[in-house]
Amino acid sequence: MKLQGILAPLTTPFAVEGSVALDKLRDNVARYNRTPLIGYVAIGSTGESVLLTSGEADQVWNAIRESAAADKILIAGTGMESTGETIARCRRAAAIGYHAVLVKTPHYFKSGMTAEALEKHYRSVADASPIPVFLYNIPQNTGISMSADLVARLATHPNISGIKESSGNVPLLAEIIQSTPADFQALAGSASAVLGALSIGAAGAILGLACFLPELCSDIYTAWRAGDSASAKEIQLSVLPASRKIVAELGPAGVKYAMDRAGYYGGPPRPPLLPLTDAQKQTVDAALSTLLPAAAAARDSLH
Amino acid sequence: MKLQGILAPLTTPFAVEGSVALDKLRDNVARYNRTPLIGYVAIGSTGESVLLTSGEADQVWNAIRESAAADKILIAGTGMESTGETIARCRRAAAIGYHAVLVKTPHYFKSGMTAEALEKHYRSVADASPIPVFLYNIPQNTGISMSADLVARLATHPNISGIKESSGNVPLLAEIIQSTPADFQALAGSASAVLGALSIGAAGAILGLACFLPELCSDIYTAWRAGDSASAKEIQLSVLPASRKIVAELGPAGVKYAMDRAGYYGGPPRPPLLPLTDAQKQTVDAALSTLLPAAAAARDSLH
Amino acid sequence: MKLQGILAPLTTPFAVEGSVALDKLRDNVARYNRTPLIGYVAIGSTGESVLLTSGEADQVWNAIRESAAADKILIAGTGMESTGETIARCRRAAAIGYHAVLVKTPHYFKSGMTAEALEKHYRSVADASPIPVFLYNIPQNTGISMSADLVARLATHPNISGIKESSGNVPLLAEIIQSTPADFQALAGSASAVLGALSIGAAGAILGLACFLPELCSDIYTAWRAGDSASAKEIQLSVLPASRKIVAELGPAGVKYAMDRAGYYGGPPRPPLLPLTDAQKQTVDAALSTLLPAAAAARDSLH
Amino acid sequence: MKLQGILAPLTTPFAVEGSVALDKLRDNVARYNRTPLIGYVAIGSTGESVLLTSGEADQVWNAIRESAAADKILIAGTGMESTGETIARCRRAAAIGYHAVLVKTPHYFKSGMTAEALEKHYRSVADASPIPVFLYNIPQNTGISMSADLVARLATHPNISGIKESSGNVPLLAEIIQSTPADFQALAGSASAVLGALSIGAAGAILGLACFLPELCSDIYTAWRAGDSASAKEIQLSVLPASRKIVAELGPAGVKYAMDRAGYYGGPPRPPLLPLTDAQKQTVDAALSTLLPAAAAARDSLH
Repeated sequence: MKLQGILAPLTTPFAVEGSVALDKLRDNVARYNRTPLIGYVAIGSTGESVLLTSGEADQVWNAIRESAAADKILIAGTGMESTGETIARCRRAAAIGYHAVLVKTPHYFKSGMTAEALEKHYRSVADASPIPVFLYNIPQNTGISMSADLVARLATHPNISGIKESSGNVPLLAEIIQSTPADFQALAGSASAVLGALSIGAAGAILGLACFLPELCSDIYTAWRAGDSASAKEIQLSVLPASRKIVAELGPAGVKYAMDRAGYYGGPPRPPLLPLTDAQKQTVDAALSTLLPAAAAARDSLH
Repeated sequence: MKLQGILAPLTTPFAVEGSVALDKLRDNVARYNRTPLIGYVAIGSTGESVLLTSGEADQVWNAIRESAAADKILIAGTGMESTGETIARCRRAAAIGYHAVLVKTPHYFKSGMTAEALEKHYRSVADASPIPVFLYNIPQNTGISMSADLVARLATHPNISGIKESSGNVPLLAEIIQSTPADFQALAGSASAVLGALSIGAAGAILGLACFLPELCSDIYTAWRAGDSASAKEIQLSVLPASRKIVAELGPAGVKYAMDRAGYYGGPPRPPLLPLTDAQKQTVDAALSTLLPAAAAARDSLH
Repeated sequence: MKLQGILAPLTTPFAVEGSVALDKLRDNVARYNRTPLIGYVAIGSTGESVLLTSGEADQVWNAIRESAAADKILIAGTGMESTGETIARCRRAAAIGYHAVLVKTPHYFKSGMTAEALEKHYRSVADASPIPVFLYNIPQNTGISMSADLVARLATHPNISGIKESSGNVPLLAEIIQSTPADFQALAGSASAVLGALSIGAAGAILGLACFLPELCSDIYTAWRAGDSASAKEIQLSVLPASRKIVAELGPAGVKYAMDRAGYYGGPPRPPLLPLTDAQKQTVDAALSTLLPAAAAARDSLH
Repeated sequence: MKLQGILAPLTTPFAVEGSVALDKLRDNVARYNRTPLIGYVAIGSTGESVLLTSGEADQVWNAIRESAAADKILIAGTGMESTGETIARCRRAAAIGYHAVLVKTPHYFKSGMTAEALEKHYRSVADASPIPVFLYNIPQNTGISMSADLVARLATHPNISGIKESSGNVPLLAEIIQSTPADFQALAGSASAVLGALSIGAAGAILGLACFLPELCSDIYTAWRAGDSASAKEIQLSVLPASRKIVAELGPAGVKYAMDRAGYYGGPPRPPLLPLTDAQKQTVDAALSTLLPAAAAARDSLH
């Protein structure tokens, strides 16, 4: 499985009264199926994974599996604090038909999450998971970061296929690429770092920004692969304000509002996440003002 | 309900094969019943709350409820990332017979956990909880900290009774005491800060150290309340190495090993937490070498 | 030399055009001479040490030395990034007549400031300094913190007499006290932590708050030593908002404005520090509104 | 002045007894003159700026000015905590013949270094400096970071020409490039981020690694400019271990030892920086084992 391209970490739609809106999710997936995205992450951070019950996770995984086009790569977010529960979720995702799992670092017991503890956790998960494991480093949420040395050790496990690095730490990603085999897939997890990551050998990216700008995100990758570094740079720079102000600063609530503006169903986040204030909505609108027309043009040029 | 004294955040015993060992838990509680501890926290951080399933939490709450002596105050740790799930757990704990709940800050979406979001979360929980709510600030695990201003606003809610501050931040605790009503109960959550906290008006403390040194922890409180500041200081200083090296640095695995040494059932932590290495065990043994005899003497003097 | 009581880290007055206003400094010292302060720190952080030239430092040290009452303990801030320059300044301060030096951790090369490097630095300084050395831990400015283990090793040096800990970390101060000889003097460096520090054995404190509230700061100490823990607590709590909002958040500019309000000469800070905005001045005024009358009452009761 | 290429931040050689070894400095510069480096930074962080007296700084600036080849761009590090002293140093560097100055953020008073204070500091410096100013962001040493918004405001000043960003924060550098005029020169300050930075529009780089691997550092730039992204990536990846283990982790002491190994004069750092231990030297030797031959080959191919 080669993740050469851009994937979106799908949001989990909620109805007004708070339940998971599976119909809205299927509608979104149907529309993403017509974009150049190469796949989806189901229940990652942007999917508000930590706010869902175990039963809801199954429903979401099933709904995405059923509505995804056949050519899309499907990755399930299965990382929990407990090694045992993480393994249980990997098995369920595999049974539903996912191609791989994305496992964020456990992090609550920060002083206990030594390199040794993380290595044992990931080896246990990879031993038990029926499908390939991608590591997931997201220190802005977890407060811990894996070192390149640890990732290099884990990359020797036959069922660990790559890593998503979401903090925009290009030097760390470069060190990971330098110290792992050529088939270990390093993925950017921040739209503000995607071109920098590609330049030092990243395979692709999983981008919250792709939930509402899938075409532009894919265009960065396509231009880069075509050797058109000037166009890649131009598009990369153009999406930076949206990446910071919407995805990084406003999180799932911001991504969902931007999806509403881009013609998808975003809807409200689940508490304790707050919906955007009017001032925040205006910030998003301003950041999108030139991007949505550019995205429409990119979409038209595809068809 | 007045929390004037020391409570222990009980560990969750696991059998060798990994399941919750309810019999061992009941045995531990029976022994704690004979100590000066004024109560127990069931499924806090030291109880490995984030590693338990929802069903296991119910089992642990029930077992502690059933085996606790009638005069012990029972507090259930119910804080989850989701506001809704937190409320559901508060209701279950109340139904089981707990006297109050301890609700840690949600924290995964750090950029979204603004003062406004945290205030709304806690007000929603306090509105719905049938039993009083204690706030829980533990930035060394969560990566976020509540300000005294936020706590002061929350202290106006009739169902929010106090706060546990676990980072040893005595100035913050002092500011909280200064800006809240006299009946708002500020509790230290770190044994290394307990006397400092009492000196500026803390009501009591919830201490991981009390899981294996309940008598000495209680002695700090008792000496202080009796006006014997010299003895209080002497005992406080004596427990510092154990507090840092066992509780702060080794976490639940360290607390459990120390419990084994002190005659309780500690047992293994649940993965990804690792059991202690031999070198770590020696560190614990050294830190306990003079404290366990002192604790035995304290115990004898009680009877 | 026993630092049992409260010292003030004197501000460095500047004239409107920017030069050091030595006359204003002498006037301030003359007034402090009539307070219960036991001594002064000349050119500490609050004295804007990093903004003064080497020649200006000498002028300030001389002016304070000449105007201080005979019973006041005089400590010179001499810590520089370079070990050699720190030693040179210790010698100059000793030659001028200072009783001790306060040496903050070098910190610019953070990855190089290992425990070993800091230990060698302080040993070199203590070997060469003609007068006793006090360590100075101020992580909120330096970004690094000494461990209790390092301090315990340094406390064995015959010319290292104590430490000022300015971050309000009461557990760290307690560990230092627990692991150093009884004559090693641990000093609080934050007014928000002073009573907590005294309760676990601190000798005294060096407080920016004492630049404008010397009587109230001294009252906390006096009440505590007299065994009146209730009064000590009451005064401690009363100064918390001023300590945080003026000293911690506004720094030397805030302290200087508060001094202007309290009848001392504060004057402007040196750029890049900015003078207070009108809104900031109102915050200070509000924080002082009840404290200045209380200080006046305390002053009257002394005479 | 266009900084399109790689500059080295020269180390300051010390003799065994501790004084500045100007002859060794001149010898080093004579050798750098024969490399593809486009210029030198005199007394930056790698030059142990904070450990030099004001008089030594003048000596170093003069020695480098006198020994540099005519085609090399000369930048003086002049940033001090005080705005006034920073300006004085800018004027001296200009009088000596430097082309530009590099001014790191003042940072000791962290709570006072608001965006407003930093903006006023830099505007005052740029107003007074006879030569163009480059901003300098190095949060790993200073503990503070400028935002892209602040840099964009400062970029409107006619005498502020660019920025060196030393933390490897490629997303921040990209945001700076996106929000400043095309002639504002963004420079990478970390060898681990140089290719990522070039890919999003950086003009060049100032690299501690270039002190001992000037040819390889320049090769990354040259390959990139020639459109040979594969070679650029290969060289970038090859230098990562040396960049992290020598420059980032061991600082000036590591750079100096590596210079000794590469045929330059490195010599000892100034205390409190410690010379390398034997184990650290072995780490450096290992990191250099394949790079020095590669550098020699690159050097041969130039001649």
